[in-house]
Amino acid sequence: TLKHIFKEIFKAGLELQQEDHRKALLVSRKKKPENTIVEVKGEKIGDGNQYFVMGPCAVESYEQVAAVAEAVKKQGLKLLRGGAYKPRTSPYDFQGLGVEGLKILKRIADEYDLAVISEIVTPADIEVALDYIDVIQIGARNMQNFELLKAAGQVNKPVLLKRGLAATIEEFINAAEYIMSQGNGQIILCERGIRTYERATRNTLDISAVPILKKETHLPVFVDVTHSTGRRDLLLPCAKAALAIGADGVMAEVHPDPAVALSDSAQQMDIDQFNEFMEELKSFQRQMVNA
Amino acid sequence: TLKHIFKEIFKAGLELQQEDHRKALLVSRKKKPENTIVEVKGEKIGDGNQYFVMGPCAVESYEQVAAVAEAVKKQGLKLLRGGAYKPRTSPYDFQGLGVEGLKILKRIADEYDLAVISEIVTPADIEVALDYIDVIQIGARNMQNFELLKAAGQVNKPVLLKRGLAATIEEFINAAEYIMSQGNGQIILCERGIRTYERATRNTLDISAVPILKKETHLPVFVDVTHSTGRRDLLLPCAKAALAIGADGVMAEVHPDPAVALSDSAQQMDIDQFNEFMEELKSFQRQMVNA
Amino acid sequence: TLKHIFKEIFKAGLELQQEDHRKALLVSRKKKPENTIVEVKGEKIGDGNQYFVMGPCAVESYEQVAAVAEAVKKQGLKLLRGGAYKPRTSPYDFQGLGVEGLKILKRIADEYDLAVISEIVTPADIEVALDYIDVIQIGARNMQNFELLKAAGQVNKPVLLKRGLAATIEEFINAAEYIMSQGNGQIILCERGIRTYERATRNTLDISAVPILKKETHLPVFVDVTHSTGRRDLLLPCAKAALAIGADGVMAEVHPDPAVALSDSAQQMDIDQFNEFMEELKSFQRQMVNA
Amino acid sequence: TLKHIFKEIFKAGLELQQEDHRKALLVSRKKKPENTIVEVKGEKIGDGNQYFVMGPCAVESYEQVAAVAEAVKKQGLKLLRGGAYKPRTSPYDFQGLGVEGLKILKRIADEYDLAVISEIVTPADIEVALDYIDVIQIGARNMQNFELLKAAGQVNKPVLLKRGLAATIEEFINAAEYIMSQGNGQIILCERGIRTYERATRNTLDISAVPILKKETHLPVFVDVTHSTGRRDLLLPCAKAALAIGADGVMAEVHPDPAVALSDSAQQMDIDQFNEFMEELKSFQRQMVNA
Repeated sequence: TLKHIFKEIFKAGLELQQEDHRKALLVSRKKKPENTIVEVKGEKIGDGNQYFVMGPCAVESYEQVAAVAEAVKKQGLKLLRGGAYKPRTSPYDFQGLGVEGLKILKRIADEYDLAVISEIVTPADIEVALDYIDVIQIGARNMQNFELLKAAGQVNKPVLLKRGLAATIEEFINAAEYIMSQGNGQIILCERGIRTYERATRNTLDISAVPILKKETHLPVFVDVTHSTGRRDLLLPCAKAALAIGADGVMAEVHPDPAVALSDSAQQMDIDQFNEFMEELKSFQRQMVNA
Repeated sequence: TLKHIFKEIFKAGLELQQEDHRKALLVSRKKKPENTIVEVKGEKIGDGNQYFVMGPCAVESYEQVAAVAEAVKKQGLKLLRGGAYKPRTSPYDFQGLGVEGLKILKRIADEYDLAVISEIVTPADIEVALDYIDVIQIGARNMQNFELLKAAGQVNKPVLLKRGLAATIEEFINAAEYIMSQGNGQIILCERGIRTYERATRNTLDISAVPILKKETHLPVFVDVTHSTGRRDLLLPCAKAALAIGADGVMAEVHPDPAVALSDSAQQMDIDQFNEFMEELKSFQRQMVNA
Repeated sequence: TLKHIFKEIFKAGLELQQEDHRKALLVSRKKKPENTIVEVKGEKIGDGNQYFVMGPCAVESYEQVAAVAEAVKKQGLKLLRGGAYKPRTSPYDFQGLGVEGLKILKRIADEYDLAVISEIVTPADIEVALDYIDVIQIGARNMQNFELLKAAGQVNKPVLLKRGLAATIEEFINAAEYIMSQGNGQIILCERGIRTYERATRNTLDISAVPILKKETHLPVFVDVTHSTGRRDLLLPCAKAALAIGADGVMAEVHPDPAVALSDSAQQMDIDQFNEFMEELKSFQRQMVNA
Repeated sequence: TLKHIFKEIFKAGLELQQEDHRKALLVSRKKKPENTIVEVKGEKIGDGNQYFVMGPCAVESYEQVAAVAEAVKKQGLKLLRGGAYKPRTSPYDFQGLGVEGLKILKRIADEYDLAVISEIVTPADIEVALDYIDVIQIGARNMQNFELLKAAGQVNKPVLLKRGLAATIEEFINAAEYIMSQGNGQIILCERGIRTYERATRNTLDISAVPILKKETHLPVFVDVTHSTGRRDLLLPCAKAALAIGADGVMAEVHPDPAVALSDSAQQMDIDQFNEFMEELKSFQRQMVNA
């Protein structure tokens, strides 16, 4: 019937229009079919291997970070995370050590031969951060802080961009485009859970975002299992799911003594838990590779 | 300080109270630490192996179901799904073949030596369904249709209970308790995606619900990858994530010719896609077992 | 440009298609431009006046309902609500008095010359309810219990249909269509809050649903301020918002002694609070009418 | 029973703890019971009267803003909105005129004797904005851009803070606290809809947030009816609901020719629609005052 034909034309138009739009984006796989590889300390993120970024929620002291760095090093990992600028819901919560925190991270990175990833929260701090850190993290609350995205797009330093608390995948991709449109294409996307009505977890890990982001963009995709769940008992199973679904890396929080942590004490692993976590995941990885 | 002590007592109280409540439930792992095993056609669901329930969204004809049953059989599977009563948003959409659909399923089950799972939508149909199907499915829209839950609890037939469209995990567990409190403990829980703001997928697969449900209850937990994603291209990666995170089974939709399906045409696999899907998953399973 | 022209055709097509669909529905204002008026005990719901449905969450005893009925009567109201069948999250919570509750409601209705509205939760109870109640309520959890909707559509009795916990407006309208497609067009829609991430209220009152439903359908639209907020302190301001935005009625819960109520004790008003609530709203209504 | 007593102590503890926390905040009504009044161009926002902030989504040209300013002036209003820095999902959408836009606003403000409200998106722009605008708006996407909040807290200029896309009321209150903790207490809160699963509106107007914010804080509360609904046909009914529930003001978008607007064309009113909107609301306001 005429109606049916009209509908088909209409659907074709819709798809065409959407495809057009996606093709236009620099981050789109339509624009560049091959994977982007972000090289950090010799790790070629996006090359098909799966990496781990581990470390404390916040940098609290040299000793605290060193304890974690040592464990990370022993596990053969290269990427350490740690927050120097902490965006916190309340102004009266611990806000991070700031540039002192960055200096601690730099010292640790040098001593343990690790790369460090740390969140920067305002454009004015990007410049100074270049001297201290290896990957600029842009956090969930700043995913649509477009001035920060642009500033990060103007430097020659990898960026790990977290998905916003309630950002759609389309908004997430466009946020990455803000960075890349300024010239910096070294971007790692990081799914970290979305805000839903469910209260059993801190956020809801949107695991299907991983294959969608891999399909729509050429960027590597990580999964932050700590913030997506907010529960230590879910870190391992969710990390396995992330690896199985094809994430390029997993991020989680480790603290020498979570009970006294200045932030996120309920969800960080201690060193023993971290070692167990890594052993299980390495074994899981070996299985998947050997198949 | 006094304040700190008070807070600790308070937290202990909170945990105690919640623990109390969970302990009281028949479905709780606190009540029964060992896994419940639901036996269907020799498959011991919940025994640590991972099962597959495949079949068309809706029963449309004998030929249509037979084509799928043959493929399912060839893959060595035992469990066939197919809807005879279809809850549809609009009263003018195809509502299913009703009891005729159940009869087709029964005939197929006998001919191909399969067990069939089919949704029942109202208490009055439970009795008649006993003669035709092997597992009663209670769908997402009826997860809090408490009269239906009670009716399913009064018969001696396994029940596959889907999580509601926007049900919390706690509500889901309580819905299972409605069934078990009536005497029927042969319950399989099924995560099928939750309703969120995200539009890239039909629902958001809450993958972390699987380990939570396994921890909180002793019941087997399935993942329906078709309804959680609504996208054929996400079925395989999400199924891998489900297996990796420890689901007891995966459910997905297969139709001999999805393009002409009377419902859910965009998300069902055809026979070839199904075979490829199964080969990939079996290979993935072997890896995980051999580790 | 050609592209622009194509887009315009495309948009026109989209609107046409959606309009088509809405026109087809019996509940659509496109099908019937004038307001449907549901007459209950002389109250012409939908006639431009704004009505109140007040009463306890659950029928607990004759005395309890009578105390509320007396207060309702004194305020000059005609419509009393009260639950005889209570859908509760846990099977161990109070489930209502059942048919005994309906009998209490009927006796009260006769003695105080009121109409009663009460929830029916399963098709098998519709028939018996006809003898006892004036309006069949279909609750949020059963908004897509399609067999119940069809059963309610086959009797000659007004139906108050509540929006599902996480139902879209489109699904809500289609649920009403299920009833009307069976022959019963005496339907009152009731917005009762939707499930969101916000925790300050039990649900989030979607106030803009009222003008949308009034525009899309010809049915009267009520607002249940009790379930949408779950907070006694928000009942009055939300009721004013509902009246201001054009709702045909407001529903709220009243209990002689909320502290000992068998359900929803935190959100019901006592008789004094109810009287104050009504005085304020009547004064607010007079202002709006006199303008 | 002992259990009951324990529970009561526990609940009291919970309330005490929460009360404690709220009391500590500078924005809390516990800290300062009387309303904060933010004076802008002689309008005493928060004094019990209800104000209007109207203007185009984005500043596009002097002529465009002047046309709106004239209409606003004729309606006897004092507060004009207009965006010079536009946070947009895509980097390729119109990003606003920047400081040129601020200069246009300043010129218009002088010529028409109006106060202007405009969004600032990064700390570095706060200083320059002081010369041009009367109220700094912090937009939804920046509600947890804490460096921006702190910068706005360090100047002597009123701030209109919009609720984040998916911010809880608690997070919203804490964002205001970030500003006030730096010394600036001239804060207007603005509910602008939250992100939910519902697609009939752009966002879901959380109308009950208004009385909650008025109760929890001493700050004036506005409702942005344009962004909460995204639909021109809902502006008037939602504005009435906002006034009825006790908002201190209503914000909406007006453009001389919405069809050619560079942003948000589907939701802005033209001048005639604006005049009708204002007449209806003024009449509605008179009714409420005369009661």
